[in-house]
Amino acid sequence: MGVTVAEIAELVDELPAGVVATDPDLLDKYRRDRAADPDAGMPLAAVRAESTEQVQAAVRWAARHRVPVVPRGAGTGLSGGSTAVTGGIVLSTERMRAVRVDPVTRIAVAQPGALNVEVKGAAAEHGLWYPPDPSSFEICSIGGNVATNAGGLCCVKYGVTTDYVLGLRVVLADGTAVRLGGPRLKDVAGLSLTKLFVGSEGTLGIVTEATLRLLPAQPPARTLVASFPTMAAATAAVLSITSALRPAMLELMDSTSINAVEDMLIMGLDRDAAALLLARTDAPHRAGEEELRAMVTACEDAGASEVLATDDPDEGEAFVVARRAAITAIERLGPVLLEDVGVPVPRLPELVAGVEAIAAARGVTIAVVAHAGDGNTHPLIVVDPADAAAAERARLAFGEVMDLAISLDGTITGEHGVGRLKRPWLLPQVGQDVLDLSLRVKQALDPLGILNPGAVFAPGGHL
Amino acid sequence: MGVTVAEIAELVDELPAGVVATDPDLLDKYRRDRAADPDAGMPLAAVRAESTEQVQAAVRWAARHRVPVVPRGAGTGLSGGSTAVTGGIVLSTERMRAVRVDPVTRIAVAQPGALNVEVKGAAAEHGLWYPPDPSSFEICSIGGNVATNAGGLCCVKYGVTTDYVLGLRVVLADGTAVRLGGPRLKDVAGLSLTKLFVGSEGTLGIVTEATLRLLPAQPPARTLVASFPTMAAATAAVLSITSALRPAMLELMDSTSINAVEDMLIMGLDRDAAALLLARTDAPHRAGEEELRAMVTACEDAGASEVLATDDPDEGEAFVVARRAAITAIERLGPVLLEDVGVPVPRLPELVAGVEAIAAARGVTIAVVAHAGDGNTHPLIVVDPADAAAAERARLAFGEVMDLAISLDGTITGEHGVGRLKRPWLLPQVGQDVLDLSLRVKQALDPLGILNPGAVFAPGGHL
Repeated sequence: MGVTVAEIAELVDELPAGVVATDPDLLDKYRRDRAADPDAGMPLAAVRAESTEQVQAAVRWAARHRVPVVPRGAGTGLSGGSTAVTGGIVLSTERMRAVRVDPVTRIAVAQPGALNVEVKGAAAEHGLWYPPDPSSFEICSIGGNVATNAGGLCCVKYGVTTDYVLGLRVVLADGTAVRLGGPRLKDVAGLSLTKLFVGSEGTLGIVTEATLRLLPAQPPARTLVASFPTMAAATAAVLSITSALRPAMLELMDSTSINAVEDMLIMGLDRDAAALLLARTDAPHRAGEEELRAMVTACEDAGASEVLATDDPDEGEAFVVARRAAITAIERLGPVLLEDVGVPVPRLPELVAGVEAIAAARGVTIAVVAHAGDGNTHPLIVVDPADAAAAERARLAFGEVMDLAISLDGTITGEHGVGRLKRPWLLPQVGQDVLDLSLRVKQALDPLGILNPGAVFAPGGHL
Repeated sequence: MGVTVAEIAELVDELPAGVVATDPDLLDKYRRDRAADPDAGMPLAAVRAESTEQVQAAVRWAARHRVPVVPRGAGTGLSGGSTAVTGGIVLSTERMRAVRVDPVTRIAVAQPGALNVEVKGAAAEHGLWYPPDPSSFEICSIGGNVATNAGGLCCVKYGVTTDYVLGLRVVLADGTAVRLGGPRLKDVAGLSLTKLFVGSEGTLGIVTEATLRLLPAQPPARTLVASFPTMAAATAAVLSITSALRPAMLELMDSTSINAVEDMLIMGLDRDAAALLLARTDAPHRAGEEELRAMVTACEDAGASEVLATDDPDEGEAFVVARRAAITAIERLGPVLLEDVGVPVPRLPELVAGVEAIAAARGVTIAVVAHAGDGNTHPLIVVDPADAAAAERARLAFGEVMDLAISLDGTITGEHGVGRLKRPWLLPQVGQDVLDLSLRVKQALDPLGILNPGAVFAPGGHL
């Protein structure tokens, strides 16, 4: 960890002017991602690379001097995957934002700093669509999406990031740049390394380009919003819908979330509802009408107090905006510890009820929003920073929610990644044998342990 | 490689009666898969495991004595991935055929020996659908599908095997059994090891159970068959369709294939056509009618001599049967060397024209059938075993077709796997850096090199 001033000067000299930042004021914004990790370190430098070659130069320098490298996209990560490490460098891809679309091959080739919304926009210019849609799609980067195998709202029908990654350009731990996969819809030559790097959270290499599969534009959608008098009725409706239909979105908000959003946006949500379900179909024409009707019936049969259905895309979009705003709205209640637990869909009612029980037992507020259709929930634990005892109870609840998910054959993270904040719960979820297997891969690809140490795996390469 | 008789007796004793076969007559059927590798060895034994625990026992024995283990499903592999190794054992999963469907979670949990058609059948009992559909779906196993990341006809719309694998149970090289992933639609906790094992051709571990995502039953399809006077006109129609629509199938047959199938099935195919295109849409109702009409227009505009469109599922299925029968029909012309090369879709015309040129230059018959919509072609090189010079020219053409695909930014294998037959072309395709990276993963997971030595990687773990 003891890098000299001369060695830092060597890094600055190897890269064009303005690429390497060492000014403490500048560095401050590279210390934390949106998880606001209180244990964030102070990096030696931030490298704002402009090309694969510059990433290679920085990683080669880091390997030479055994300096940790924390890769960073737009800094919107929610698990501390981009928390800076004292004595390390931050490798930011924020300046690598080019996106190129090839409409005949139906792919986009994106640099990692391009925002998800920019990829969607470039595709849309050709009547095409890049489906993965994290709620943060307007501010999160494709590189971060690849690093975490990000999900979103339409994933219940259209799958997650890895389903759209055909190829990657990756800088390895020794600075070598490789191309994995490519613009081929089928390719099974050799190991599936492309898919291994997706979701590896910067611990195996640094993605400098992604080749992404695109679909034809999504057909106009029909949307319904249903209010439920109890959470149990809402989750029953979810299971009824997922066991018979294939919605293009199936989202859940609890009472706390509904009220937080209504406080912020004032759009007439039903403040008295215990839960709100937001469902969408993009099946075309009559099939869409039928699917919408079947979802309305499922909600009514499950006991919905009110169901609003619309085939007006703008009206439908307004409700989706409400759902997307939920995390921001809840953050207005106080700092939050953000969960991302998932379970097999049939266990969703148990998960949601269990979270309510933890909130009651610990005396903390936990708001729940969920990608209910794929069993992925975001309990948001509101922390009162002025009350040390309450903050400690919130911290305990944070772990208990993950323990609960594990006990339900679930996961501690459906789409945000393990990062640094959820690392202690990885072993309980996957078990020692799978962790050992993962570490063997990690050590084979990053023998010096310089790539994002502390994320997913402990800094020394063990737990 | 020097295992004693006593050591083989130890293996027999560790497993229930009838699991281990050592009789040479019995062993003969475990020597080759459908690639009929002429260099197949003679195994010491075939272990017909009935459970994960029995696979573990066999692998532990093999690890103890440094004995190669060649995993085998239904033996329908087309690249020699299950060619037996002299001095090794064959680990057959043919007896592990259970399939369980959970309709609410919408998954199937299948043992590796279950046939693809059996998984489809079990899903269909619940009104669900397992999409991946290799032409051999009635005889190939799910374990083999996972090992090769198998594709098929509907993949152009619905993706390949890896897109449906949510979890795996895998026996590692030391006999440890791990569970990777599981019945969760989103799960990003830790490295994406599930996806790494898909397509690893038995070189990293032995899959003993797969958790597969299912979809609602496919809607009734509309099908068209178009005849073209030139291959160039047919490939032009393919690009026109893929750049604007999302067909559920888009298959191509050349004149040799058409005539071979017509010889076998006598179903009235146009023997004078240079190429035949088979396209399908499963968009519902009016959307399907519109998509079918647009595809008919695309074929006509590209110069089709005849276009037949039908919304009768049975009539449509008859044409698909013709396409699926193509490899069998061509094999009646003589032994074939089966290619599986793919390119980015816009380069399909160059690939097909290049294959024709190779056939002409080498004076060999090469029939072409193709999953045209995803750029994946199967040139079938017919070998005359009675003519040594012609057989040698066929062998040269086999390599030249792969060289051609590589030169077009393509792949040597789109869905069959590298196995043993295509191994010399893996390095030219992926390059030394990617091969080195792959070998590091292989060595980390199989340090003794006992898992399927010679498949994908050279037996010593180098090329």
